Order: sequence, then structure tokens, then C-alpha cells
Amino acid sequence: MDTTPVWFMRQAGRSLPEYRALRERHGILDICRTPELAAEATLQPVRRLGVDAAILFSDIVVPLEPMGVDLAIVPGVGPVIESPVRSRRDVDALKPLVPEEGVPYVLEAVRGLAATAGVPLIGFGGAPFTLASYLVEGGPSKNHSKTKAFMYAEPAAWHRLMERLGESVLAYLRAQAAAGAAAVQLFDSWVGELSSEDFRRYVLPSVGRIFDGLADLDVPRIYFGVGTGELLGDMAEAGPDVVGVDWRVPLDEAHRRTGPQVALQGNLDPALCLAPWKVVESRATEILARAPKPGHIFNLGHGVLPETDPSILHRLVELVHMRGAEKLYG
Amino acid sequence: MDTTPVWFMRQAGRSLPEYRALRERHGILDICRTPELAAEATLQPVRRLGVDAAILFSDIVVPLEPMGVDLAIVPGVGPVIESPVRSRRDVDALKPLVPEEGVPYVLEAVRGLAATAGVPLIGFGGAPFTLASYLVEGGPSKNHSKTKAFMYAEPAAWHRLMERLGESVLAYLRAQAAAGAAAVQLFDSWVGELSSEDFRRYVLPSVGRIFDGLADLDVPRIYFGVGTGELLGDMAEAGPDVVGVDWRVPLDEAHRRTGPQVALQGNLDPALCLAPWKVVESRATEILARAPKPGHIFNLGHGVLPETDPSILHRLVELVHMRGAEKLYG
Repeated sequence: MDTTPVWFMRQAGRSLPEYRALRERHGILDICRTPELAAEATLQPVRRLGVDAAILFSDIVVPLEPMGVDLAIVPGVGPVIESPVRSRRDVDALKPLVPEEGVPYVLEAVRGLAATAGVPLIGFGGAPFTLASYLVEGGPSKNHSKTKAFMYAEPAAWHRLMERLGESVLAYLRAQAAAGAAAVQLFDSWVGELSSEDFRRYVLPSVGRIFDGLADLDVPRIYFGVGTGELLGDMAEAGPDVVGVDWRVPLDEAHRRTGPQVALQGNLDPALCLAPWKVVESRATEILARAPKPGHIFNLGHGVLPETDPSILHRLVELVHMRGAEKLYG
Repeated sequence: MDTTPVWFMRQAGRSLPEYRALRERHGILDICRTPELAAEATLQPVRRLGVDAAILFSDIVVPLEPMGVDLAIVPGVGPVIESPVRSRRDVDALKPLVPEEGVPYVLEAVRGLAATAGVPLIGFGGAPFTLASYLVEGGPSKNHSKTKAFMYAEPAAWHRLMERLGESVLAYLRAQAAAGAAAVQLFDSWVGELSSEDFRRYVLPSVGRIFDGLADLDVPRIYFGVGTGELLGDMAEAGPDVVGVDWRVPLDEAHRRTGPQVALQGNLDPALCLAPWKVVESRATEILARAPKPGHIFNLGHGVLPETDPSILHRLVELVHMRGAEKLYG
């Protein structure tokens, strides 16, 4: 396209009144598992905000249930796992995901969206470390200490867990691409809790195999995490086409850390969308000025906050399109 | 001393059975406000672990109540503020802290500990941004969005808030030093949520005034935060003698970012203390190898986790003393 493309992580969701109306009638997992509802939630922000991509509405834990994991999403808490994974035996009990059998509703949603969205659809999967953290902790965690303790104490079982999750995530993303997703994003929300040394030893091999395993498909591969300033070079080494950057690292510095072989996605602080428009405008303009040219997808550094006014996001899309075109051609 | 000094953030607390016994009889704020109990909690880890410093047992919110803030510590939640600070009027209503009147029990605890602890006592205060986050959010927060929204929307009121908190924290730390604290640590637990640009604009001036205001006293000044990899240079610029580093940035790299004018404190991942001893030993040894020489205080990158076995901490102290001496004299 002729300007900087823009979409927002969690663009579908609690900041939109039409999404809140949908949620009054349906639970999150129900929406994820019903193709028409998942498609509706996916398209709401596309209609309202004018973004350049749709991101499949789903939850990171969706593929875990067909792998044999008992889970529920508890309001105010997040995903809760009935029997956490804390031994080699628990790891071996995880079934490999066969997407056509385990998550047919996701693929049906993707097929429908690919045909009708009018913008490219980004497929979506949780990365092995972040999925493992949910599985080992039994739910969301502040410090991921049980996950790390398992990783340090039982490295062989840990690597088996990463391998099993990695194979399933690869199958999941390949199936989404085959169903029509034009790009895929691997969400590694919690990986920024690790040092570079631990990332390289305990996580990089499985993530590298996912990106390698997608290389024959014609879909850009995005790798996203938060608080990953020290990991940007390692994340680029894992083989994605695009690395997500949060607001802590300016994009020119991020570009130095990743090297020029990957594009960057980011990196406005979601909290800035709660600021007066003049502040938003000045910070977004600064991000565009520091971005590599080309090779930048404008986004937030993490998901849209529920209290965000959608009209600010719409204005932001217009601003990025205008200033992005000036930057490329001005 | 003849080796690398070592202490642990949150060394007093839930990992010690004798502390849990104390807590069965007393609430956290009761312990903080009763000099004998605060002294007992402060000394428990000194007796058991062999650390080189005592850190005053207190809570970051203790000085807020005499500033006119209604607060409670809710089990499982943390500090909860009855009437959050969200306007210029709320800021102006905060009373300056006069430590001798507002927190006499803290100073009494410090005086007693300075006389009897047998190791240097580190005084303790929350930094303006982190205190402001509690005040504005009304309690602990995942993304500090209300705090940032206030900061962006009302910069004048924000700077007034930082100034008021900074003056009170300075008075608080000066009073602790006068009562016998041999060093002081400014805790800025949440400041790593800010970009360098925001830190420099919205936080650095008030923190700089605190360290300047302590410069005439003969007490080393430590500045600590988490997830502050991108801020280490800015934090050093604020004027402390020591900067705390979490586990994400290796100490040699941290040293490059801060420059040689400050010492470093850190940086073992607290989750590593849940690992088998061989892993702890190898990681602690690596930290000592990467540390500046001299100018290193061994510590964790954040507080001791409740599930930590105290005997691991004791072994770690012995290891640091042995390997630290080898490093300095070997």
C-alpha cells in the first residue's frame, strides 16, 4: 500500500460498544467457538476504525482444550486450568493438535473472513512459552515462578513441553493460512519475563521451528511480546518477518537490535490513547519519524485498553495514513 | 568489606516461617507501625541468612497515611486507597509529610535497629512515580493506565504531585538517615512501565531532587526499579550512588548503560531461587563474573518469592562471599 499500514492489537474487544453488546449475550469462549460470532467480533473494528487488517478474534487458550486441557475463562481472572502441567507425565498427556478435528470452528471463521473481510486477515496463535505459563501456573501469573521453576528443575520435560506446544501451534497457524489468513502473528505475551540467556536456551529452539515450518507459505510471520527490549535480537533470530516492539524501546533503537532483515510493528503506549488528542498526535508522529522506511506496521505496544475511546483510534488511523504517505513519498 | 556484599529485597517476609508466625498474630501495617515488631521482622533474615545488611521492614504506603490518604492493605490485593488522587484539587489536599510527627514509629524502629542490628541498616522509601500510581489507580494496577492518563492530560497537576511526593519522600529518607540508617533505597517498582522519554519528562526531575537533597549526608543512595533496561542511563543521571538492575540486563551491559559513576545492585532472577542448587550456583557465579569490580552489591532482581526455601538463600550468601572474595583477591 501507499502508506504505513496500521492495525491495533485487541482492536476487537471491550473498547467497542458493539462488542460489549455481543458480550452481554455470549461468553468469550462461545464467541471464539462460533464462526459467525467470531467473524462479527473480528469485523467490528474493521468497520468502525478503518484499520488495514483484521485480526482473528480468538483467545490464546482456544487450541489447548482439544489438546486435552480442561479450562475455563473466569471473569476478572482470565483462563483457569483445572489440572496444571507440572511433570513429564503431564506433558506426555498433552495430545497433539489436529486443527481440522480440534478447532474446525476457527478454520471456518477464517475461511468466511478471508472471503468477506475486505482487508487482509491476520491469523493468531499463542507462543509455546506463553501457553506453557498458563498450563504450568494454572492461570494468569504475576511472576511466572512455577513455570520458571519447572523449566530450571526439569529441562528435559520442559523441552518436551515446548516441542509439543510448538508442533501444535505450527499446525494451528498452517491451518489458518491454508484457510485464507494472509499473515500470522505468534503472541508471546509473557516471554519478556526471561533473560536473553534463558530465552535462547529454553524458548528459541521451539519458536525457530515454528517460523521455519511456516517458511514455505506465502504469509508474513509476526512475532510479538511485551517487555522484550533485551530479546529483540534473539526474537529476530527466530526467523519471523516482523517483530513486535512495545513502547519502551524507540523504533530506531529496536531496528538496531533486530537488524534490518525484519520489519517492525509498533509501538505506541496503549495508555497514550487515553491522552488528549494533541499528545497522541505528537507521539504517533514521532514514532513514524523513528520507524524504518519501509518495513513498519503501525500498532500499539500492547492491546487496546478497555477504557479507550474508539474515535481516538479512528483519528489515529487517519493520522498514520496521512503522515505515513508523507514519509514514504513526501 | 573483603568480598561482595549481599542482601535480598524482601528478605524479611513470607519465605520465613518465623515471619509467618508473626503475621498470624499481626497485620502488615500493625507490624510497620510498632517499632518492636518492625525491628523483629527486620532482624529475622539477618539472623537466619547471614546477609550483610538489614533492610527496614516497612511498606511503601506507610508514609501516605499521615499525608492524609485513607488506605488499607487488603489480603490478596495489596494497598487499597479509599479516595484516589485524580485532580489538581486532590493533589493540593495531600499534606507534606513531617516524619517526626507522621511516622514516629518508623524512626523509633530505625533508631533501635541502628543500635542493635550488628549490620548496616538500609532505610526505605517509595519513589514518587510508584507512590503516585497507588494514589491515582487506588491500588495495585496491571498497566498503570489511569496514572499515565492523568500524567498526559494534566501535566501541571502531575508535576505538582511529583513535587509534593518527592519533598515528603526526601524528608522521610533524611529522617531515617538521621535516626541511624546507614544507606537508603528508593523503590520505584513500577517506573519500568514508562518509556525513557516519559521518564525524563515526568519523573526524573522529582527523583533528581530527592538524591540531590540527600547528597550532604554520608549515606549511599540506591535507586531500584524493575523492567528498567531502557532507563538505566536515565536512572544513573538522577544522581544515586547505586542503581538496582533486574535479571533482564546482564551486569556488564548494565554497567555500559549507567556509566562507571554508579555501583550496581543485582541481579539474580528471584525465580532462580526455586531451581536446584547447581543451577543457582552457576547463575550466581556468572553474575559475579559479569559484575563491575568493585562496585557490586549482590541481590535479586526483585523481591524474594514467598515459596523460596530460606536455606537456599543462606547457601547463596555463603557462595557470594566465597566467590566474591576470589574475584577481588583471587
